[in-house]
Amino acid sequence: MKISTKQAHFSSPLYLESGRILEPYTIAYETYGELNSDNSNVILVCHALSGSHQAAGKADGSNKVGWWDDLIGDGKAVDTTKYFVICTNVLGSCFGSTCPMSDNYPSHQPFRLKFPVLTIKDMVKAQMLLLSSLGIYKLKAIIGGSMGGMQALQFAVEYPNLSEHIVSLAATDETRAWAIAFNKVAIEAIRQDPRFQDGNYEKDAFLENGLSGLAIGRIAGHISYLSPKSMDKKFARDYVSNDGLFELFGRYEVERYMEYNTANFSKYFDPLSYLYIVKAINTFSLQRGYDSKEEAISRIKSDIHLISFSSDYLFFPSEMKEFHELLIANNISSTYEDVQSDYGHDAFLVEVNKFEDKIRTILK
Amino acid sequence: MKISTKQAHFSSPLYLESGRILEPYTIAYETYGELNSDNSNVILVCHALSGSHQAAGKADGSNKVGWWDDLIGDGKAVDTTKYFVICTNVLGSCFGSTCPMSDNYPSHQPFRLKFPVLTIKDMVKAQMLLLSSLGIYKLKAIIGGSMGGMQALQFAVEYPNLSEHIVSLAATDETRAWAIAFNKVAIEAIRQDPRFQDGNYEKDAFLENGLSGLAIGRIAGHISYLSPKSMDKKFARDYVSNDGLFELFGRYEVERYMEYNTANFSKYFDPLSYLYIVKAINTFSLQRGYDSKEEAISRIKSDIHLISFSSDYLFFPSEMKEFHELLIANNISSTYEDVQSDYGHDAFLVEVNKFEDKIRTILK
Repeated sequence: MKISTKQAHFSSPLYLESGRILEPYTIAYETYGELNSDNSNVILVCHALSGSHQAAGKADGSNKVGWWDDLIGDGKAVDTTKYFVICTNVLGSCFGSTCPMSDNYPSHQPFRLKFPVLTIKDMVKAQMLLLSSLGIYKLKAIIGGSMGGMQALQFAVEYPNLSEHIVSLAATDETRAWAIAFNKVAIEAIRQDPRFQDGNYEKDAFLENGLSGLAIGRIAGHISYLSPKSMDKKFARDYVSNDGLFELFGRYEVERYMEYNTANFSKYFDPLSYLYIVKAINTFSLQRGYDSKEEAISRIKSDIHLISFSSDYLFFPSEMKEFHELLIANNISSTYEDVQSDYGHDAFLVEVNKFEDKIRTILK
Repeated sequence: MKISTKQAHFSSPLYLESGRILEPYTIAYETYGELNSDNSNVILVCHALSGSHQAAGKADGSNKVGWWDDLIGDGKAVDTTKYFVICTNVLGSCFGSTCPMSDNYPSHQPFRLKFPVLTIKDMVKAQMLLLSSLGIYKLKAIIGGSMGGMQALQFAVEYPNLSEHIVSLAATDETRAWAIAFNKVAIEAIRQDPRFQDGNYEKDAFLENGLSGLAIGRIAGHISYLSPKSMDKKFARDYVSNDGLFELFGRYEVERYMEYNTANFSKYFDPLSYLYIVKAINTFSLQRGYDSKEEAISRIKSDIHLISFSSDYLFFPSEMKEFHELLIANNISSTYEDVQSDYGHDAFLVEVNKFEDKIRTILK
């Protein structure tokens, strides 16, 4: 599989949903496989909150494999011998696209809290402009999970002629209070960490130790990505063997897992990017900008495919199911499947074997 | 209804499950109604993590009504014209019982992090000793919700002859990884708040502004006390009307609710008490100290009554149901009811009308 990692620089203004403008801006992206002669074999993949454009394989210089490598590759469900797959780093994220720590042109100072609020619609628009700049005007499919699934749906509404298929996994049509509440933990934990300094931290301040506020907020995130059953299976009530049970800060294995993963995360993920992306997730509603949800979805021309996971405690299957029923009631092509899984929200990443056949069928 | 608020001081040693000793110690408690001549009309009520001994009515000098006032009072399901109801502040809590900020006798310095780790078994033992000191050796019932429900079950195992009935609501027989993970947010948020100073904060340091670490941790708590449906009903996707939607820190109503409630909480609840009580919840397992869960429950002589709430996202109905089935399989008297409610874990506090008849029937 041929992998290319690139950055596209745009000097034209990007008009944001907030009314603000981003100019210039950069989109980092990675491609897998080869574009055919009439640019008709393109699939766009969209990442989640903490993901990046490194979706598959292992690009030169990278030390880890892409987050959806089980799904994308030669002979895999998203077959890179047939398709040219593109994944961009969303606007606002800290892996090469324009983000709060980018220079606030023409100064060489980072935006920090002066960065404009972004929405899922903005992220999608930036990707659309990237596709146009590459001469790609028609996609076979747009596929995404979690926040990536939100983007896929937003594409369907905003750019009805763009993609034949839209596949949205472990997502929702509008973020509910439950998910916003989980994000609130991260927002407050980051803001109230004195090292965050209202966003005015040194650029490399957290490389070594991470920002504890982000790590704390991320614990809440991890809870919502797992499920009671997956935690029972993974951790039971096992105690860290050399921690005293009657020591106040002695830990259960689930606590050690949370500490380890979140501390690591807070060393490589920028806290400002986290705040901005979480804000985009919170404000996500397909309806915004239209008189009603019906008006929004009436624009859709793609075939919609919704996949939920039975143990998803962040975006519940009922949300996808209700949205599917609304689509059908409005004569919009939609399929819906609730994949039985114990892995919670994370199932879209870790149980690819449970839905890859469905994606194969869609792309056939 | 006659209300008495008291403190009992014990100069004898309290032997804790950890092997450590607390001496002397104090238990704050409140009573409702009147003790009959043969001390046979007593009901013990046990509170949850953030509760206190102020369970019903409004004691002299108190500015708020007890946390289970809907349930306890003259003519109510726990009828104080018939029963003498006792509620103690659990050991470790900050409302008058011995806790981490109590003097580490014989010094006049608070224990702080030198306070011994407490368990639910310890909390129950201290209440047992209080009852004995009052000449009460037999109870009509022990009733508790959440951590109070854990205490009720622990009483059943440790002191089989004490109570005729055990009523445990919104609880579990052992804390699962899911609940421990929610508590982990609070533990880390408190510990990593620089104002916490490893427990060496000024005694009244948080009265005015609260400890933000506790407030942050408490957001995770509130998520687990509510449910997706109750949040949809209460908050929908309503935005705080004067917060700009495209302001980074503009808030949804659910975010304002979290801020408001947790900020308040962090002004009156001691963060060290929170850490110690959360530890007791995490380590709760009826089985500990016995070869098996079966051995533990084989001791039970009381009639057990388990009540779960269908939308409880902290201690899931399945946990109570499985425990009920285990009791029945071991020929222990048990009833189980899953109360249909949208209010999540908090239903045991806010939907008393849904289970008061059941409690009336039990006490008849």
